[in-house]
Amino acid sequence: MATAAQMGRPREHRVDRAIAKAVRELLSERDYPSLTVDAVATRAGVGKAAIYRRYATKQEMTFSVLLHDARDQAAADTGSLKGDLLALTTQIADQLAESSAGVMAGLLADVYADPALAERFERTFLAVERSNVAALIDRAVVRGELTHRPDPVVLHVLLLGPMFAWLIMLDEDPARASELAAVVVEVIHKALASGTLSTDPREERADDDPA
Amino acid sequence: MATAAQMGRPREHRVDRAIAKAVRELLSERDYPSLTVDAVATRAGVGKAAIYRRYATKQEMTFSVLLHDARDQAAADTGSLKGDLLALTTQIADQLAESSAGVMAGLLADVYADPALAERFERTFLAVERSNVAALIDRAVVRGELTHRPDPVVLHVLLLGPMFAWLIMLDEDPARASELAAVVVEVIHKALASGTLSTDPREERADDDPA
Repeated sequence: MATAAQMGRPREHRVDRAIAKAVRELLSERDYPSLTVDAVATRAGVGKAAIYRRYATKQEMTFSVLLHDARDQAAADTGSLKGDLLALTTQIADQLAESSAGVMAGLLADVYADPALAERFERTFLAVERSNVAALIDRAVVRGELTHRPDPVVLHVLLLGPMFAWLIMLDEDPARASELAAVVVEVIHKALASGTLSTDPREERADDDPA
Repeated sequence: MATAAQMGRPREHRVDRAIAKAVRELLSERDYPSLTVDAVATRAGVGKAAIYRRYATKQEMTFSVLLHDARDQAAADTGSLKGDLLALTTQIADQLAESSAGVMAGLLADVYADPALAERFERTFLAVERSNVAALIDRAVVRGELTHRPDPVVLHVLLLGPMFAWLIMLDEDPARASELAAVVVEVIHKALASGTLSTDPREERADDDPA
C-alpha cells in the first residue's frame, strides 16, 4: 500500500511539508472559510499547480493536512502491539489537536456537502488509515501477539472515536488528549489480548503478504 | 439532577415531543441551513414563544433534538451495569443515526462559531449527559458491580466516541451501529470489571446521594 511519497521522493516530500506548514500557519491566523489555495501557494512558496496535483480542492487539501496526511504516514512499527496502538492513537490525536474544533467541524460539513469529496475522503484518506490499522494487526500476528485478526474497520473506530469526540465534538483540553490516548490503548489492548474483539470478516484474505 | 421535564409535566412533554418530531421531519425534507424556527413552530402546532422558552436559537434547538435531548433522557436503569452501558450507548447511537453526517457536522460548525452556544452546549447537554453516566456508575457501585468510580468524563467519551466517529465522521452504515455499540460495551464493561479505567479524580464527592 506504499504511495509514491512513501517510496521516497525527497523533493515531493519537501513540497508536501511546505504546503502542510502553510495551511497550519494560515489557519492559526484566519478562520477556515477564508482560507484559499492562492494564499497557501504563496505562503508555501510553491505554484498552485503543485497544490492541485495533490488535492482536487481547498477542502481536500485542508482535510489532508489537518486530519490525516495519509500519504506521509505509515503506521509506526514500535516492536510491540501495545506500542503500535499507542503510536497510532497518539498520531491521530496530535493531528486532530492541531486544528480547532470549529475548523474541523466546518471542514467535515464541507466534505459531506460534496458527494465527490466525501467519496474521495473514503477512497483515499480513510482507506489508507484503515490499511495502517490492518498493517498494525498483521505485525502483531507475525510477532505472535495476536492469534486472530480483529476487524480493522472496528479497531480503527475504537481508537479514533474517543480522540475525535474529545477534541472535535466536545472541544476538550488537548493537553489531556495523551492521557486519554493511553487509557484508550490500555482498554483496547486488553480487549485484543483477551479475544474480545470480533474477527475480521475478511479473515480468509488476511494471508496476503502485508508488505 | 432531575430537570423540570423529568419530574413530570405532561403538557410540557407533549410540546417537547411535537417540536422534536417537527425538527426531524423537516430535516428529512430539507437541508440544515434552510431549517427555520418558524417552520418548526408551524409544523409542531406550537407558538414560536414555546420554542424560544426552551431554546435560545435554531442551532440550540436542532442540537438538542438531534444530538441529545437531555431534558427528556434519564439514563435507563436496566438492573445491571452491562445493561445500563448498552442502553446508554444504544440511545446515543440511535439519536446520532437520526440525522445525516452532513447535518450534524454543519450543526457542530455552527455551535463552535458561536461561543455563547458552545458554552451553553457544555453547560446544558454535555453536563446532563455526563450526569447520566455518573448515575450509571453510582447504580453499579450500589449493586456491588463496581468497587471504584471511574471518571464519568472519560467513560462518557469512551462510549460516545466510537458511535460519533462511525456515524458522523466516517458516515458509516447506521444499520451496523448496534453491532458496534455491542462491541464497545463488551470492551468497556470488561475494562470496568478489571479496574482498567482510572478512578474519578472527584471520588471524594461521589458519596452524595445520586437520586
